Amino acid sequence: MRSFRVELGPRSHPVHIGPGALDQLGELAVLSGLPPGRAALVTDVNVARLYLARAQAALTRAGFEPVELELPAGESTKSLAALERIYDRLLEAGFERHSALFALGGGVIGDLAGFAAATLLRGVPLVQVPTTVVAQVDSALGGKTGVNHRLGKNLLGAFYQPRAVVADVDLLQTLPEREFREGLAEVIKYGAIMDAPMLGDLEHDLEAILARKPACLEAMVERSLRHKASVIERDEREQDSRALLNFGHTVGHALETAGGYRHYLHGEAVAIGMVAATALSRLHAGLGAEDARRLVSLIAAAGLPVAIPPDWRSEAFVRALELDKKRVGGGVEFVLLDRLGHALKRRLEFGQILGGLG
Amino acid sequence: MRSFRVELGPRSHPVHIGPGALDQLGELAVLSGLPPGRAALVTDVNVARLYLARAQAALTRAGFEPVELELPAGESTKSLAALERIYDRLLEAGFERHSALFALGGGVIGDLAGFAAATLLRGVPLVQVPTTVVAQVDSALGGKTGVNHRLGKNLLGAFYQPRAVVADVDLLQTLPEREFREGLAEVIKYGAIMDAPMLGDLEHDLEAILARKPACLEAMVERSLRHKASVIERDEREQDSRALLNFGHTVGHALETAGGYRHYLHGEAVAIGMVAATALSRLHAGLGAEDARRLVSLIAAAGLPVAIPPDWRSEAFVRALELDKKRVGGGVEFVLLDRLGHALKRRLEFGQILGGLG
Repeated sequence: MRSFRVELGPRSHPVHIGPGALDQLGELAVLSGLPPGRAALVTDVNVARLYLARAQAALTRAGFEPVELELPAGESTKSLAALERIYDRLLEAGFERHSALFALGGGVIGDLAGFAAATLLRGVPLVQVPTTVVAQVDSALGGKTGVNHRLGKNLLGAFYQPRAVVADVDLLQTLPEREFREGLAEVIKYGAIMDAPMLGDLEHDLEAILARKPACLEAMVERSLRHKASVIERDEREQDSRALLNFGHTVGHALETAGGYRHYLHGEAVAIGMVAATALSRLHAGLGAEDARRLVSLIAAAGLPVAIPPDWRSEAFVRALELDKKRVGGGVEFVLLDRLGHALKRRLEFGQILGGLG
Repeated sequence: MRSFRVELGPRSHPVHIGPGALDQLGELAVLSGLPPGRAALVTDVNVARLYLARAQAALTRAGFEPVELELPAGESTKSLAALERIYDRLLEAGFERHSALFALGGGVIGDLAGFAAATLLRGVPLVQVPTTVVAQVDSALGGKTGVNHRLGKNLLGAFYQPRAVVADVDLLQTLPEREFREGLAEVIKYGAIMDAPMLGDLEHDLEAILARKPACLEAMVERSLRHKASVIERDEREQDSRALLNFGHTVGHALETAGGYRHYLHGEAVAIGMVAATALSRLHAGLGAEDARRLVSLIAAAGLPVAIPPDWRSEAFVRALELDKKRVGGGVEFVLLDRLGHALKRRLEFGQILGGLG
């Protein structure tokens, strides 16, 4: 097991990565100072079928008495209605201020259960137990929690740091291929914005990663989380440099919204968004042609989509871009690369965005 | 106008107290760094009838474009349903990350709108504009926000500091007598737990306070808020000494819950709770008989109830006490006085509480 600490002052906490970490969940929580006794395990039905019994057993062995809640799988669970189900279930079970909530699942469960932990009794201890690549390399760390509103994704939420993150890379073995690959978009992103040698290593190891070799997965998750940790240690609440993590996400979110979240998985939309941001980086940030080609090739080699869809200029796409939370005045704050491994923010006008993706 | 700063690191903010402060609301918000443009004014129908137009005008003069939301008056508005109404209205109005939410009202509006501000777009700037004595001397400061759940009061919420508190004491002139007096319970509380000379001043000035002399109200609100600020500066998230502010609140909350919030206003329940805590302080903390008599006399002179109701041993009361969030093991964490102006925490068993109030 590999462990490191995220330094966030009073919100500092450990991150544990390794095969079999799920079976040590209870001990690791106790090590983080969480008191045994009443606790909760929030998950979705798909994850529950595979891993709930093991998580329960690990918690029970350490003296926790978890109440379980299985929610439907999928983005529509990130709702106020599901949040209320968590509130009701946990309060009925006698949840108290020091009772710990374990979020066992992908990004949807992590965001939703994290928001519940942030707002139950003005905050109860939270442990993130991510089960997908996207959650293990990205969303479980950093404290972004929330649910969707009919007017947009993640419009309701809070910054709320977990007391620990426990990423068992063995759990990635059961992921459907498409869900496994979408997570690689976020991995490639770290290389693109802050670690050029990582791109070389990914090119070199891609076959072993796609074959899900445990040692490769562990190294990949650790390197990604260390990068994310270093960013949020500098800017926890995204007032400045944390926004660089949004590379590929502006166009990505707009594609997701315009497609009603049916066409693309999140990581697939981010992959196309990175291709778009790479094209804009050529025009507006001086990224070299060879670097751009190399990055797009790696995204494609990971089995991710790289073609900007023919209808991307659709009204729905433009409207989604306009509604982007990062909107400032007449333009959009865009993350671009001036070279591989280095990102910067640039404000682009709508015309520049639409013209640059022709 | 009297102003001071609450020192909470990155969450430090000013407090402004004075007659006519409402008309300077916009300027004061701009001084706190809030950007003009889209904003929101959340209030209840009673307050709206009296003060909404003035608040709107003050904001508009400073360049804010407030969208208004008037909610029903009363405790039942502190609900997830009302929270959703705020979310919908503000997001439909194009609320953005830097848009300010002004909470114009008593404790219900402050808690509810504060929770909305804490959770919209992961936190938008909040200005508390308290309109009752309870809110001006207590609840508007300190960052406790939340709504009720059917299983108990304030079970859902977050700690979220406002960017400014603006307390216009002129607004207290239109309060119904009973609501004015209930607020004095919280004022007397500060004297009891941390400022014995304040009790003498209250005894001396009580007539002028009850006559709502503006200078007296301004001094009373400022002294109360400075006391509260000093407590939360030491313990923002109630991990230790902030709990001393709960003097009178353990029995008070149980009375409110047992009475279904119909019999007593919050301050009235706290008044009785302080009388109960005074009796227990005699038994378990060495409070002198004369001091106890003096405190109870002041509470009575303020027109607040001091008689523990005959049915206080009811099952509903005991159950409410058991459910108290501050419950630890078999007892209840109780705030007692060892002398006037000095409080301490003591864990009491149920038997000691029930026996001590005979």
